[in-house]
Amino acid sequence: METFVKYSKKPKLNNPVLIEGLPGFGQVGRLVSEHLVKEFKGKKFAELYSPHFPPQVMIKNDGLIDMISNNFFAIKRPKKRDILVVIGESQAATITGQYEICEKILDVAKEFGVKDIITVGGYAMGRLMKRPKVYGAANDKKIIKEFSKHGAIFKTKGDRGGIVGASGLLLGLGQLRGMSAVCLMGETPGHPLLIDAKAAEEVLNIIGTYLGEEIPMGELDKRAKELEKFRLGLEKMMKKAIQQVERQEESEQKKTEEKVKYIG
Amino acid sequence: METFVKYSKKPKLNNPVLIEGLPGFGQVGRLVSEHLVKEFKGKKFAELYSPHFPPQVMIKNDGLIDMISNNFFAIKRPKKRDILVVIGESQAATITGQYEICEKILDVAKEFGVKDIITVGGYAMGRLMKRPKVYGAANDKKIIKEFSKHGAIFKTKGDRGGIVGASGLLLGLGQLRGMSAVCLMGETPGHPLLIDAKAAEEVLNIIGTYLGEEIPMGELDKRAKELEKFRLGLEKMMKKAIQQVERQEESEQKKTEEKVKYIG
Amino acid sequence: METFVKYSKKPKLNNPVLIEGLPGFGQVGRLVSEHLVKEFKGKKFAELYSPHFPPQVMIKNDGLIDMISNNFFAIKRPKKRDILVVIGESQAATITGQYEICEKILDVAKEFGVKDIITVGGYAMGRLMKRPKVYGAANDKKIIKEFSKHGAIFKTKGDRGGIVGASGLLLGLGQLRGMSAVCLMGETPGHPLLIDAKAAEEVLNIIGTYLGEEIPMGELDKRAKELEKFRLGLEKMMKKAIQQVERQEESEQKKTEEKVKYIG
Amino acid sequence: METFVKYSKKPKLNNPVLIEGLPGFGQVGRLVSEHLVKEFKGKKFAELYSPHFPPQVMIKNDGLIDMISNNFFAIKRPKKRDILVVIGESQAATITGQYEICEKILDVAKEFGVKDIITVGGYAMGRLMKRPKVYGAANDKKIIKEFSKHGAIFKTKGDRGGIVGASGLLLGLGQLRGMSAVCLMGETPGHPLLIDAKAAEEVLNIIGTYLGEEIPMGELDKRAKELEKFRLGLEKMMKKAIQQVERQEESEQKKTEEKVKYIG
Repeated sequence: METFVKYSKKPKLNNPVLIEGLPGFGQVGRLVSEHLVKEFKGKKFAELYSPHFPPQVMIKNDGLIDMISNNFFAIKRPKKRDILVVIGESQAATITGQYEICEKILDVAKEFGVKDIITVGGYAMGRLMKRPKVYGAANDKKIIKEFSKHGAIFKTKGDRGGIVGASGLLLGLGQLRGMSAVCLMGETPGHPLLIDAKAAEEVLNIIGTYLGEEIPMGELDKRAKELEKFRLGLEKMMKKAIQQVERQEESEQKKTEEKVKYIG
Repeated sequence: METFVKYSKKPKLNNPVLIEGLPGFGQVGRLVSEHLVKEFKGKKFAELYSPHFPPQVMIKNDGLIDMISNNFFAIKRPKKRDILVVIGESQAATITGQYEICEKILDVAKEFGVKDIITVGGYAMGRLMKRPKVYGAANDKKIIKEFSKHGAIFKTKGDRGGIVGASGLLLGLGQLRGMSAVCLMGETPGHPLLIDAKAAEEVLNIIGTYLGEEIPMGELDKRAKELEKFRLGLEKMMKKAIQQVERQEESEQKKTEEKVKYIG
Repeated sequence: METFVKYSKKPKLNNPVLIEGLPGFGQVGRLVSEHLVKEFKGKKFAELYSPHFPPQVMIKNDGLIDMISNNFFAIKRPKKRDILVVIGESQAATITGQYEICEKILDVAKEFGVKDIITVGGYAMGRLMKRPKVYGAANDKKIIKEFSKHGAIFKTKGDRGGIVGASGLLLGLGQLRGMSAVCLMGETPGHPLLIDAKAAEEVLNIIGTYLGEEIPMGELDKRAKELEKFRLGLEKMMKKAIQQVERQEESEQKKTEEKVKYIG
Repeated sequence: METFVKYSKKPKLNNPVLIEGLPGFGQVGRLVSEHLVKEFKGKKFAELYSPHFPPQVMIKNDGLIDMISNNFFAIKRPKKRDILVVIGESQAATITGQYEICEKILDVAKEFGVKDIITVGGYAMGRLMKRPKVYGAANDKKIIKEFSKHGAIFKTKGDRGGIVGASGLLLGLGQLRGMSAVCLMGETPGHPLLIDAKAAEEVLNIIGTYLGEEIPMGELDKRAKELEKFRLGLEKMMKKAIQQVERQEESEQKKTEEKVKYIG
């Protein structure tokens, strides 16, 4: 099996911007992307499947299952640039898979003529911020200038940092394809189970200004709560898988204080 | 080496149902599948080998070895739908291997015209249940309706869970191929060395009703005991492999308090 | 880079037996194979290289380096079956690599018309044995009968065990190619730094009888000592690599109690 | 995505020597290579990208990002042999990737007619050396003789050591292609955050003599400090990534002392 994209239909998009919001710190990216899709009635048109995703499916409350995928949504905006959003439950679980999946996302972007990419993440601070700032990183100077106007902070005095996963790789791999890309990172405590609506709001403000679009924030808190509930279930499941393996080993240890039978 | 299937013969099967029971919680899936094969005199007709299985062989009591494989059995039922069972000692040991092996199982299923899949697993509860319930998850609504009639529970109020490994992936990957698939999970304590005959019986009851077949349960307990004995040996071996590596490192540590020689 | 074999020359071999002795418990396999090569003046004719070996080279005392490889030696015996020996410093460091390298070894074996394989390993007992027994496992009944005559023990009452790595996989993958293969395992304490000359001697006795060849044992102890010295150096190096990584992380931990900078 | 090299231009090089200085013990290799590039005004002409590098990008102080790459620089020397330098932020993060990337570096070297390779590393001593020695290892006797004259120590009495990573593999894989290669290792404490200018100076002295070139050392200390600062940032980032995962698991553990929901 190779990483592949399954289209349900191919929308016509007007000079679309790609917005990526896969799982990460504070789930800021995910919350931002899902909020956009819901507020602007984005339509799913394609699913990306990969053997590099965790080998499992999720069960919905009605008993139907969902494979792990990254999903593409189209947001049509009359007389404005359209938006192509990529969301998903997971990033790749292998190193080479991270590159493979990001390349495939860029293939889709290219097919729809994407020239600009916005990736969204959280910037872990270890503590709660009253008013989270939004840091930026980008792959060309023009986009830094553009997003600086809208309030993102690009220049830093301190140590160089880095961006791990899709939010970073899409900038790097996008650059190799001549796509202009920025990563917007809202300050967030970085606690794994906190879904940070405040950080998401700050990022959405910047994206709204950039897109020339008023983004209603009323439902944002509710969505953060829903996402938190979903993630609790998902992480509980993964935790159990780990505990299971550990318990297995412990119980083994107790039972094998007899003579050694293993053959090397 | 690629994952491949080696046929000893190709049976003619009448509209077969695929039943998968690879190792997992409480070995419920495995016990269910092996019980069906033994009670209904299933014949092995193919073996799946993969470089993604743990790199080892098992020794039988007569000194003959067994490679790790997933094995296909055909159960012929006069004037009824036939059954195609897949059993094995192990699931893939790598992430991409899980996908690759499940795809190969579905290739075999497709070749024999399988349209319906039942995967069997355990639902770990952390404690013993007087009368284990059977939870279900499926990739289409019709099959949920069908198995709800037979007693499987699909709708849950609480958090979404997930299904890790082949029992889950076969549903997801099956869906991509238009195959209808259900996973039946018997409540089980989840203790790694308990082979849960009670949970298996509850699942077998549902499968029996679905297949219109009385399944004798007399030998089920005995088979659970045999499987338990086999698994004890297998897990002991794996434990030893891990201990060996650890002991190696410890002993190394003691001996290398001289000056450092390693070159980086 | 693919796993490949580099021939320096291709010997003509008379119905050769393949003997494998890669690193494992008590280094019994390695000691047995190296002893045979030295006593019977085996000539190296091919080297197997693989990207699945640990990514490092070894330094000899004169400053020359050695890549990690598995090496093929030919032992010519006038009017008797010849012997093809495979030795090396390492087994594959990845799961799929274990399969890939064993397949390549079998490709070489097949090219020289090998029909019989002997793999050699240690059977870890956790304690020193006065007179180590030799356990066997095989992929067909005839070879069990043959080696039982020479003193190997195949039938066991207790739990099934397993054989991890090349010594096991060559039996399994050999079987798929119709090659007859036995694994001979000398009882050994299983202490990682003990090179077990006594266990090796017992295995050599059986191989000698099978091959109709008197194997001089005078140098065996000396060779065990040399191998022990070599392995001490090798394992020290690997240990250092691990310590280095750990030290790096610790030192990092100390220095990063300032505010969190990482971006997710 | 495959490992690939992107050329900005292809310089004409006169019988060039390849010098490799990727991250390793004491960052000796990196410091040596970067010093050479800066002192002799090396021009970058190609970048190597790979899906085997860590899946992340780095942020520079101006907000621009850098993908992880290994970079090729050309140093032109009138009437002398030219120098081809390879530097980078990272080595491969997977086992097979180490081989793949080294093969690609050698492909580039071959294209420019490289016949001699110098790799540079640190030799971890666990303590500070007043005047660090430089140890050598090589893939042919001539180059040992040559560099012995310039002060590198090749013959050792004690245990064989090894060279992990690119500095070692380039010697081994170079040998398979008939390239002559030496690894120069300056004694260094091996503390992960110490960038060892003294060890680098000793190695540079030897390289200078070999190349018939006076290498100014005035800026070496300053460059060590800069590299140290950069690495502190980079490692902090990686540390955070690990902590994040751990914190996630801990927090999970606390929240899941309810009944078990995971399905196996």
